[in-house]
Amino acid sequence: MTDPALKPWMSEHRRPRVVIIGGGFGGLYAARALKRADVELTVLDRTNHHLFQPLLYQVATATLAPTDITAPIRWLLRRQRNTTVLMLEVERVDPARRVVTTENGREIPYDYLIVAAGARHSYFGHPEWETIAPGLKSIDDAIRLRQRILGAFERAELEDDPAERAAWLTFVIVGGGPTGTELAGMIPTIATHSLPRDFRRIAHETARVILLEGGPTVLPSYPSALSEHARLDLMNLGVDVRTGALVTRVERGLVQVDDGETIRSNTVIWAAGNAASPLGRSLGVAVDRVGRVPVSPDLSVPGHPELFVVGDMATISTKGKPVPGVAPAAMQMGAHAARNIRRDLEQRPRAPFVYRNKGDLATIGRHRAIADFGRLQVTGGLAWWFWLLVHIMYLAGFRNRLSVLMEWAYSYFTYDRGARLITRGEKAGGG
Amino acid sequence: MTDPALKPWMSEHRRPRVVIIGGGFGGLYAARALKRADVELTVLDRTNHHLFQPLLYQVATATLAPTDITAPIRWLLRRQRNTTVLMLEVERVDPARRVVTTENGREIPYDYLIVAAGARHSYFGHPEWETIAPGLKSIDDAIRLRQRILGAFERAELEDDPAERAAWLTFVIVGGGPTGTELAGMIPTIATHSLPRDFRRIAHETARVILLEGGPTVLPSYPSALSEHARLDLMNLGVDVRTGALVTRVERGLVQVDDGETIRSNTVIWAAGNAASPLGRSLGVAVDRVGRVPVSPDLSVPGHPELFVVGDMATISTKGKPVPGVAPAAMQMGAHAARNIRRDLEQRPRAPFVYRNKGDLATIGRHRAIADFGRLQVTGGLAWWFWLLVHIMYLAGFRNRLSVLMEWAYSYFTYDRGARLITRGEKAGGG
Repeated sequence: MTDPALKPWMSEHRRPRVVIIGGGFGGLYAARALKRADVELTVLDRTNHHLFQPLLYQVATATLAPTDITAPIRWLLRRQRNTTVLMLEVERVDPARRVVTTENGREIPYDYLIVAAGARHSYFGHPEWETIAPGLKSIDDAIRLRQRILGAFERAELEDDPAERAAWLTFVIVGGGPTGTELAGMIPTIATHSLPRDFRRIAHETARVILLEGGPTVLPSYPSALSEHARLDLMNLGVDVRTGALVTRVERGLVQVDDGETIRSNTVIWAAGNAASPLGRSLGVAVDRVGRVPVSPDLSVPGHPELFVVGDMATISTKGKPVPGVAPAAMQMGAHAARNIRRDLEQRPRAPFVYRNKGDLATIGRHRAIADFGRLQVTGGLAWWFWLLVHIMYLAGFRNRLSVLMEWAYSYFTYDRGARLITRGEKAGGG
Repeated sequence: MTDPALKPWMSEHRRPRVVIIGGGFGGLYAARALKRADVELTVLDRTNHHLFQPLLYQVATATLAPTDITAPIRWLLRRQRNTTVLMLEVERVDPARRVVTTENGREIPYDYLIVAAGARHSYFGHPEWETIAPGLKSIDDAIRLRQRILGAFERAELEDDPAERAAWLTFVIVGGGPTGTELAGMIPTIATHSLPRDFRRIAHETARVILLEGGPTVLPSYPSALSEHARLDLMNLGVDVRTGALVTRVERGLVQVDDGETIRSNTVIWAAGNAASPLGRSLGVAVDRVGRVPVSPDLSVPGHPELFVVGDMATISTKGKPVPGVAPAAMQMGAHAARNIRRDLEQRPRAPFVYRNKGDLATIGRHRAIADFGRLQVTGGLAWWFWLLVHIMYLAGFRNRLSVLMEWAYSYFTYDRGARLITRGEKAGGG
């Protein structure tokens, strides 16, 4: 691993070039861990911002504004004098030549590369479902979903045909993981509390939220007592939770489930299934079914000690358990890969990655959550306060923290939604 | 004007139907003035939000977030039990049949109609300039401009060719009215204070801002002493102010002025010239050169006492002076048209509209403004505080006021820009 042939910068008497692809949790924490390293660091991202993904569903449901949960990557790294941030989309990696190719054919050479390009949705072989049932990964996705959810109430208000009005007031969420559960928990609050004062023609008690989960339980990664608690919380909010319900067909205006039932809905949201960034396939190694790259214990790609893959793009087991595709895992992997590069530079042996699960948290609607800290399991209002505290703590940048706290206080006390913006612009980027 | 043939609702024993097209200043103030009227009021807008247009340039320059200066129209009118808000784009008006036709061919009949659909940019017969030199009227425009301005610095950071880098760091604003002046005053602050810490490769002192005004002075609607003051303020900020400079050609990457000079710039912003909404032409009356409808003293269209046109779409002189196309005039006209409808219902004679100019304010960059209150003229820091107070007072909805004040305090003390979001999404609506 410390083969001198791998270290051209030594003979060339220059600082090693480290390139990070992606400014999400993995990439950002990798960059931060290299703050004081004697390297020339370049961070590449297709957008200019880091996104606090765990709160994306709150933008989709109009509680937070897009700028509340985003911060410019170059602003977050502004104090790192060894770091250059470039807004460029990466097209492929050439591990043999040690070059990253970006849009416009620009080539960026590296001595070390950390790939942290994340994941997109997977439609299980039905990519045509995407336009009908959009998912929630980027800030653009969240703005689009916000337009769809708010727009559905606007369309229902206009509609004279009762069946069509019901289709506009039926929200189907496919997938009972954290994103699906959190979205499903927010929509009833909008329908029953935030909007009724403002609409004249639609009866809000008729809005339906249906959560379809293919497996036997929602939030399957949690202990079964907590999953069951979340299911009851959702049902108390009025959500129609259906487990063991596989989606077999999605068309404009309808969703078909494997029991044969057809649900008429004009707002279907996809929260089931991820696929790793296609960049993984350009690395020239075998990837798993969902496109993830199997990495060595030090997080490098086997046969390429200078090439690391972290976050949702990587697959690895530590302590006999697969590392989950969650934000804390991406942060820990990013920082670990960076520390292994520092160990190389300091001629110390690399360390294997061990995932430390500090606890899992999921919120269900307003004032309810579940928290799993291993031996300690918490539900209800206390878990919700935990959730709030942890998210505010991790939110990047002081300014956003304050703004988010204010928006939450506002929605909490008024039941109102602050960020209810629908535009007609088809060409504007996310705002 | 009170011809009973004009009042079908009387014989039909129903409340008169009032329709308002547009939820901007004219439409919103008209709707509010009808709060307690015994009418059935419908407000139509293509978006779901009222926009506080005077602060739009602050979204374009990343100080405020889109949701700070927008509020759902139905939320603003939620306490008016006689009011229905529908998110629909209007295609035409048929004054003979008294019907408004919207998208999807829906027809909405009216007894009274207030048209307040505002204005768009005008490119003086060069519509092909629009994609190169976008304007600033809607929240989508502002988000697009923000992407362009922030994106220009990102592109400059990437650029190796010095000429091309200079073109990315040259910002040309066409038009020296309030929007052009306010935009021109903000960009130097971004370039010299907000961004330098975050970028590595570009020298910020080389960013150029050029303001091109065809007439002899910037802010031509102000007394000449104030216009001159504004020009000096802009020059002190480093803006290259060129008066008597007519644009003769706009192409990707360049602007040509009538003195023959060609300016290389990749960011050209259009703030010259307005054209009224094309809806005016569907009313079947003669419109002026820029599409505005000449209205009677009561703000109705001659020959159509049930049809009012207000705001930027109308042209009228009061006290021998043309009413300017500014927000206070639209507010006053909207409220006045509504009060004339109430006078009809109460069998009282209509009143002629008189524009009351409470003063004009324009801000130039940070901490400078000019204010014209007729006999009293104020410049500098004091005028800026006036400006701040007035804008906060008028900003619709308490929640936005507080949020905007916080954003301003943040930018003011830190020189930072809170809302620096660039996305890649071409399909997302404004955020």
